[in-house]
Order: sequence, then structure tokens, then C-alpha cells
Amino acid sequence: MMAAMPDHSSGPTSEYARILADNARYADEFEHGALRPPPTRKLAVLACMDARLTIEVALGLGTGEAHILRNAGGVVTEDVIRSLVVSQHLLGTEEVVVVGHTGCGMRRFPEDEVRRQLTAATGTDVHLDFEPFEDVEENVREQVRRIHAHPWTRDVPVHGFVYEVETGRLREIL
Amino acid sequence: MMAAMPDHSSGPTSEYARILADNARYADEFEHGALRPPPTRKLAVLACMDARLTIEVALGLGTGEAHILRNAGGVVTEDVIRSLVVSQHLLGTEEVVVVGHTGCGMRRFPEDEVRRQLTAATGTDVHLDFEPFEDVEENVREQVRRIHAHPWTRDVPVHGFVYEVETGRLREIL
Repeated sequence: MMAAMPDHSSGPTSEYARILADNARYADEFEHGALRPPPTRKLAVLACMDARLTIEVALGLGTGEAHILRNAGGVVTEDVIRSLVVSQHLLGTEEVVVVGHTGCGMRRFPEDEVRRQLTAATGTDVHLDFEPFEDVEENVREQVRRIHAHPWTRDVPVHGFVYEVETGRLREIL
Repeated sequence: MMAAMPDHSSGPTSEYARILADNARYADEFEHGALRPPPTRKLAVLACMDARLTIEVALGLGTGEAHILRNAGGVVTEDVIRSLVVSQHLLGTEEVVVVGHTGCGMRRFPEDEVRRQLTAATGTDVHLDFEPFEDVEENVREQVRRIHAHPWTRDVPVHGFVYEVETGRLREIL
């Protein structure tokens, strides 16, 4: 299932063509066509977008088993609350797992400097809150707190892990 | 690597234990410890959180190759812009793929009714914009437009697909 190494020299069109070719092979062996929308493990996972996290495989999750929410840092934003409301109230998930990771680019992120550079580069006022953090374990605890504290989430178990990009191992946080 | 079917009868603790057991097996065979943060395919993927989308495998993406952004509907919210800014300006991605899917719960989503029910259930004013849509192909086109139009994103190729949950196949949209 893994693709060959990418060839960036031939530009973006090669990536588009590669996706279609790999997907055709995937579809040829596809056997999940009868799955219904509610995740069979009644689980929602929130993780960072980092390319080194192949989150379903690292957590042993198969197709159809869990909602996967991912953004920069794996932080609980308004959009994550929107997604969790849909996941819990409409699609019946009853447990949440938050996964931070070592080597995260959002740790000690130079927010003011980046905002200045982007404002100069784009010619617009970049007023983003990047949600940087100091410590990855404390950040996971903070995201779990946010989920528990929000009035629109259901009262369900919320676990926290730190994924080690160096070893592939999950560190138990709470 | 696929886990056995879940046993929901023994409650949430069994899922936590299962994740740790599956992850221990994953870590034992782990061989990606030397990867750096920038995605090797210089690609960012935006997709729905739906459990039926095993997006990396369906697109032939290996560990370390692409940023993965996922939320309810695969829509371009403020949080997705934040993540794309980090992905493009700080971690060097140069191409975006947006993946909607058939059977999406955000299609013809009864937003007013859900807001009323949640407001009653939680005792708070649920003022969420759920970002529902009528047509999945048009929704993908709209999300691609939003990415191109945003002043903080880079001028890079943005592709759109609809993933068929019935067949595993990507339909080319733009």
C-alpha cells in the first residue's frame, strides 16, 4: 500500500497523478463499502496534523472505527468543539483521545515574530492566535481540560497521550 | 496491524488498554524515527473526520509525507487557515488536496433543529455554525475557492476530490 518515494522535480501534477494511481489500487481491494457513519469504537481522536503521525495505525484503528480530528498542535479550537459536538451528539461517540507529540512545531513557537513576517509577506494584518505552548505534556492536559470544561461536550472519558516521533510509542499522560 | 473487533461491553477502559497494546506492537516495528517535521511530499490534505476515511492509505501516503487536517465536513474554517499558514509558511508545503466524501453527515444537516435540541440539552445558547452543505461536489469546489481566496495562504495548486465511501474510489472534481 505504501507509495514509492516522491519525485518533486516534475512538479505538482505528478503528485496528483500519483494519488489517483495509488487510489485506484486501494479501491481495487476495497472491502469497507457497507460501513455506516457512526464510528464502531464510539471513539473520537484529536491529534496534530504533523506528517510523522500516522495516527490510525499508531493507535491500531481500522477503517470505520473512530472520528479523526487533526489541526496544527492538536489543540481544542472552536472548530474542534464544532466537530466534537457533531461526533458526540449526532454520531454517538462516547470517548475522546487527545494525542500530542514530541518535536511539535507549535512548541515554543515564536508567535509575535511569525505574525510580523506574515503581515509583511501578505500585506494584510495577520491577527492569528497560533496556539503555541511551552510543554507538550502540559499542553495535552490543557486540551483535555478544555474538552471536559466546554458546556457543549458530553460528560465522557477523555484520555491524553504524547506520541514519541522518535520511537512510535505513546506515553500515558492522563 | 489491524486490531480485533472492539468489545464495547466492558466500557471505555477496555479501549484505552487496547490502544496501548496495539501501540506497543506498532512501536516494536517502528522505523520512522529519523523523519524531520517538513512533509516529504510538501503536501497538505484537508478531509472530513468521518471514520470511514482512512485518508493516508486511500491516497497512498506514508508516514512523514503530508500534513493531515481533518474536521467535520472537511471545511475551511478559521482553524484550518491557521493550520495551513503553519503548514505552508513554516513547514514548506506547496500543494493542497481537499477531500469531501459521499454519505457525509454535514450534507443537508438540519442546523436549526440541531441547535434547538443542543440548546435544550446543554442549557446554554448553542450558537454554532455547523457549516452544512447541499451538494458534496459543490462543497469541495467551495472549500478550494476559500483556500485560494484567503490572503494568508500561498499561491499553490489546490486539488479537490470526492471520496466514495461505497467503493474507496476518489472522484476528480478539480
